[in-house]
Amino acid sequence: MSQHSEMTAQQEQARREQELTEQVTASFVDTENPRLRQVMQSLVTHLHAFVRDVRLTEDEWNSAIEFLTEVGHITDDRRQEFILLSDVLGVSMQTIAVNNPVAGEATEATVFGPFFVETAPEIPIGGDIAGGAAGEPCWVEGTVTDTEGNTVPGARIEVWEADEDGFYDVQYDDARVSGRAHLYSDDQGRYAFWGLTPTPYPIPHDGPVGAMLAATGRSPVRVAHLHFMVTAERYRTLVTHIFVEGDPQLEIGDSVFGVKDSLIKTFAPQPPEAPTPDGRDLAGRGWTRARFDIVLASEQ
Amino acid sequence: MSQHSEMTAQQEQARREQELTEQVTASFVDTENPRLRQVMQSLVTHLHAFVRDVRLTEDEWNSAIEFLTEVGHITDDRRQEFILLSDVLGVSMQTIAVNNPVAGEATEATVFGPFFVETAPEIPIGGDIAGGAAGEPCWVEGTVTDTEGNTVPGARIEVWEADEDGFYDVQYDDARVSGRAHLYSDDQGRYAFWGLTPTPYPIPHDGPVGAMLAATGRSPVRVAHLHFMVTAERYRTLVTHIFVEGDPQLEIGDSVFGVKDSLIKTFAPQPPEAPTPDGRDLAGRGWTRARFDIVLASEQ
Repeated sequence: MSQHSEMTAQQEQARREQELTEQVTASFVDTENPRLRQVMQSLVTHLHAFVRDVRLTEDEWNSAIEFLTEVGHITDDRRQEFILLSDVLGVSMQTIAVNNPVAGEATEATVFGPFFVETAPEIPIGGDIAGGAAGEPCWVEGTVTDTEGNTVPGARIEVWEADEDGFYDVQYDDARVSGRAHLYSDDQGRYAFWGLTPTPYPIPHDGPVGAMLAATGRSPVRVAHLHFMVTAERYRTLVTHIFVEGDPQLEIGDSVFGVKDSLIKTFAPQPPEAPTPDGRDLAGRGWTRARFDIVLASEQ
Repeated sequence: MSQHSEMTAQQEQARREQELTEQVTASFVDTENPRLRQVMQSLVTHLHAFVRDVRLTEDEWNSAIEFLTEVGHITDDRRQEFILLSDVLGVSMQTIAVNNPVAGEATEATVFGPFFVETAPEIPIGGDIAGGAAGEPCWVEGTVTDTEGNTVPGARIEVWEADEDGFYDVQYDDARVSGRAHLYSDDQGRYAFWGLTPTPYPIPHDGPVGAMLAATGRSPVRVAHLHFMVTAERYRTLVTHIFVEGDPQLEIGDSVFGVKDSLIKTFAPQPPEAPTPDGRDLAGRGWTRARFDIVLASEQ
C-alpha cells in the first residue's frame, strides 16, 4: 500500500469516527428540555473522545459492561456503589468544585459523604457530640463570619464523624445516635463543642470499586476528618470537613479526593493535666484542641 | 467586587478544578498494568471535562446516580440495560469503528447486537434460514472477496434476523430456532440463501434507557436489518448488517447508530409470478431479492 493511500485510509478512518459522534449528538436535537439536550450532547462528545483516545478494545468494552453490572447489582438501599465509584474517580468532588465557586476567602467545600442524618440532636455551645462513641476527646472552636468579615450569629452547624474504630453510628446494627449533633453560633458568631480526634478509615472496599482500587494500586482509606454542614439565611450552604495536620494518610492520599490544604487544621495534643477550656474533667485522659474559623459565601 | 478581583476569583476557580483532575489522574500512577493506567487516566480526564463543561449541578449528579442505579437493577441474565445504554449513546458503535480500521474497500462493520447464537444450523447454499419464522421471503446472494479482489472460498457466513413481528427466535419462550443459520461460500466465493425481508422493530424501551429516549425525543426503533458475521482464516472477522433501501426508519434514524450508507442495499420487490432463482415455489407470495458482495480485510 503506498504512503499516499495509507494517509487516505487514516483520514477516512478519522472522518468515520468523527461523523459517528456528530450523528449521535444530532440525534438529541429534538430534546424538549434545552438543558437535558446540552448535558446529553456533551456527555456523548466526551465519552466518544475517551473511546477514540484510548482506542478502547472490544474486550475492554466488555469488561466495562461487566464492571458496571456488578456495581449495579451490589447497590441496594444500604449500599450505593455508584456514589462510591463517582467518589473514587473524583467526579463527586469535581461536581462540588463546580457548584461552590470561589468567593473571596469563603471556606472551601468538600464531599458530603453518605453518613449525614437529618435528626441529629441539638447541643449547647460547649456540648459533647460523642454520645458515647469511643475516641480521644477533642475541643473544636471557632467563629462563623462572612466574606466581608461580618459575624454570622445563629448559624446552624451540623457536625458528624466516625468513632476511633472508623465507623459512624449508622453503620452499627443497634439504633445508637453518636458522633453527631448540631449547634448554633452565638450572637458574636462563636461556636465550640467537644468531639473526637478524627482517625482514618477505609471506604467499603469489598465490592467492584474496591477491586478497581486494588488493581490500580490505590488505597481505599479516607484521610481522618470531621464533617461540617453550616447553614444560615442569605448564605450559601457550606458542606465541608476539617482534616488533621500530620495524619500520615495525607501523604498517601484521600481515596475520594476531599482534602484541601486550607482545610487541614492543627489538632494540638494536650496532656491529661492541661486544664480544659470549660473545666470539664476528662478523668485523666489526654485530649486535643483545634480551631476552625468558618467563612460563608453570600447566596448567589 | 472589582473587575480585577473577579478575574482572580475566576482564575482561582479554574486552577482548583484543574488541580483536582490532576490529583485524580496522579492517583493512578502506581497501577501495575500500564494499559489499565492509561485507560483510567483518560476516563477521569474526560469525565471531569464533562462535569466542568456543562457545570453539572448537584441535582443532575443525583439524577445520574439514580439513573445508573435503575439501569443496574433492571439488568439480569436475560436483559442487559448497560449494553443498551452504550448502544443508544453510540459508544458501542464508536468502539466498533475504532476496532475495524478502514482497509481499502473492506465492507464496513456495525453493531453485533444481543441476539447472536453460536449453535445456528448449517444450510447449503440456496437454503432457507427462516425455519418457520413469519415474513416475506427474500433471496440474498453475493460473493466473498478480499481487498485485493481475490475470491474467498469456504468463508463461514452466519446470518440472523427478526421475524416480521420484530422478534428474534430467542425472544420467544418456546425453544424455537428460526431466522438464523450459517453457510459457506463456494469455491468461487459465492453464496446465496433464502431469508426474510427485514422489518424495523424497537429495542426494549420499557426501562430507564427507554425513558431517556422518550425524554430526549428519540425513536427506540432500529432500522430494518439482516445480521451477518463472516469468518475466514487470515481475514479480520466481519460483523455487520445490511439495511433496506427505502425503509422510512432510515430518515428517522437508527436507535443504535448502526447504519452506514455502504450497507444500504436494494431489496427489489418481485411479483408472485416472477420465477425464483432456484425454482422454489412460493405458493403465490411476492418476494424480494438483494445482492450483498462482501469484502474482507486481511488480519493485521
